[in-house]
Amino acid sequence: MALKRIGNQTIKLLNPPTILSNYSIVGPKEGQGPLKDYFDLIIEDDLWGQESFEKAECKFQEEAIRSAVDNAELSLKDMDFLIAGDLLNQIVATGYSARELAIPFFGLYGACSTMTESLSLGAMLVEGGFADKLVCATSSHFSTAERQFRFPLEYAAQRTFSAKWTVTGAGATVLSSYGSGPYITHVTPGRIIDPGITDAANMGAAMAPAAMDTLINHFQDTGFKPSDYDLIITGDLGIVGKSIVMDMMKEKGYDLGSVYTDCGVEIFNPRAQDTHAGGSGCACSAVVLNGYVLKEMKKGKFKRVLFMSTGALHSPIITQQGESIPSIGHAITIDINNE
Amino acid sequence: MALKRIGNQTIKLLNPPTILSNYSIVGPKEGQGPLKDYFDLIIEDDLWGQESFEKAECKFQEEAIRSAVDNAELSLKDMDFLIAGDLLNQIVATGYSARELAIPFFGLYGACSTMTESLSLGAMLVEGGFADKLVCATSSHFSTAERQFRFPLEYAAQRTFSAKWTVTGAGATVLSSYGSGPYITHVTPGRIIDPGITDAANMGAAMAPAAMDTLINHFQDTGFKPSDYDLIITGDLGIVGKSIVMDMMKEKGYDLGSVYTDCGVEIFNPRAQDTHAGGSGCACSAVVLNGYVLKEMKKGKFKRVLFMSTGALHSPIITQQGESIPSIGHAITIDINNE
Repeated sequence: MALKRIGNQTIKLLNPPTILSNYSIVGPKEGQGPLKDYFDLIIEDDLWGQESFEKAECKFQEEAIRSAVDNAELSLKDMDFLIAGDLLNQIVATGYSARELAIPFFGLYGACSTMTESLSLGAMLVEGGFADKLVCATSSHFSTAERQFRFPLEYAAQRTFSAKWTVTGAGATVLSSYGSGPYITHVTPGRIIDPGITDAANMGAAMAPAAMDTLINHFQDTGFKPSDYDLIITGDLGIVGKSIVMDMMKEKGYDLGSVYTDCGVEIFNPRAQDTHAGGSGCACSAVVLNGYVLKEMKKGKFKRVLFMSTGALHSPIITQQGESIPSIGHAITIDINNE
Repeated sequence: MALKRIGNQTIKLLNPPTILSNYSIVGPKEGQGPLKDYFDLIIEDDLWGQESFEKAECKFQEEAIRSAVDNAELSLKDMDFLIAGDLLNQIVATGYSARELAIPFFGLYGACSTMTESLSLGAMLVEGGFADKLVCATSSHFSTAERQFRFPLEYAAQRTFSAKWTVTGAGATVLSSYGSGPYITHVTPGRIIDPGITDAANMGAAMAPAAMDTLINHFQDTGFKPSDYDLIITGDLGIVGKSIVMDMMKEKGYDLGSVYTDCGVEIFNPRAQDTHAGGSGCACSAVVLNGYVLKEMKKGKFKRVLFMSTGALHSPIITQQGESIPSIGHAITIDINNE
């Protein structure tokens, strides 16, 4: 079989899978932000009636998966695979939601890059004939992530201005071998890049070089220019990381111009909502993709989108041991047309 | 393209990828066990000169990957993907070893099922034409796992008889589209099954039903009988889990007989080494596969092997919240012949 790779690290999907359906759920703060009208469900109680924030996050992810499958007018039994992950230790939000679903399951850990990690693998598995229909998903929760990575909420720690606000929510996407688009036409998986930053409250700067590495490889591999896209959107670099990417890509000869933004910049109003450098977390890119981006693609606003979730692959124990924060970004091209 | 699925949840690989090379490293205790002559490298200092057990585990995994690639007479740049994971929070043993390797990277979390999770995805990506050569890897370390899941070693907690001993080590496997075998011919990804066990010192019983679910699906989907295999080997059910699988599979009409064993049973001598119910951890199945099984296949002892790593997808925080332990097993068929 001919290899489907082009250039260094991009896959060109000859029979691009269709995004058959998508679903997004968010918490109360996201439901007051600039994208509130795009989300399928806004939950006012961020415990969603559960005993713990962790169990609430499980419920967010499970409901997003069930609803995406419903939206495709399919049942859980029709799903050949579930490909999903989250930010928590041992990805328990995913493991415990997947427990209820009985779908053959591949668990991922890609930190906040999970949405495009799952779509990258999912798109290849469908295109390769290993699955006819599958579901990709992820979640995050402000209160589980604070306890996991920073300080339990009860400490009332102050937040620096470079800190981001973890999005509470979940997104799920059903991919299939049939359908009329939007299509995933290219996949550029990322490599790990570590610029040496040790401050877990400055993730935007830690992740920006990994985002740039994937962007540059994508443009070189495919021959696309930034202007070939109607939207180039990174996952959760936030205000700090976005401005680094804009400036440094220009130095490298790529003017991202007005087509570039970041999900973490779009999801909150930083002044009115006190979210400092913007949104983050697996759900940040997941709900912006499954809420805003795909809905605007179907309405015709965007024809071709370069979508890249970005992730920081550290843990509290290893940063306490003095290590810096390695990061990664996985990019996919989503196109209304099947080239 | 014709779908490559057979039955409920098995993939039949039409152009089976070759296992081009493999490598195993273990710590001192594993290097005194019954399989000691099969491991490529035995490290006598389980810190391996590093400042922390976590950093030692990174070194185990990085060295296993580099050496497997060397064994294939290839360089890291030839690897299209690295597909890997481990047991630690935010899979830092994998993330920090991958940082040094500059290979496009998919991070997994499958707990102790990681070796066959990575080989399952890797085999499909090669067979589908998305990669020509890639490397699959995982690691675990007794001292990082005790701190992560149970008690820091300094507490000197007593171990129950159902408890297993996490293997210190790492294994890596290079897959390619060319070569003369052994081949991965079938993949049966697992579903999550939770029998309701809440004791994190009784993982064998927690994982046995997930192992059985995948075994039964594999036999039903493929039409293979246990006697079609020269070896059926699960990942780390240990003595307790193995006997549950033997007994309950017999009740279901499958006599696994003398071809069945478990990596966690084989790797230690429980009485002489005080390892209670046997070995566990991602490295348990990884080093038994990349040490014992593949080497004996190449010598001709086993022609067809059903290999299944098994994993328990809990975390300390969710078991403290009263949750039981969901588990999974992913199975692959490895055959000397390309059917």
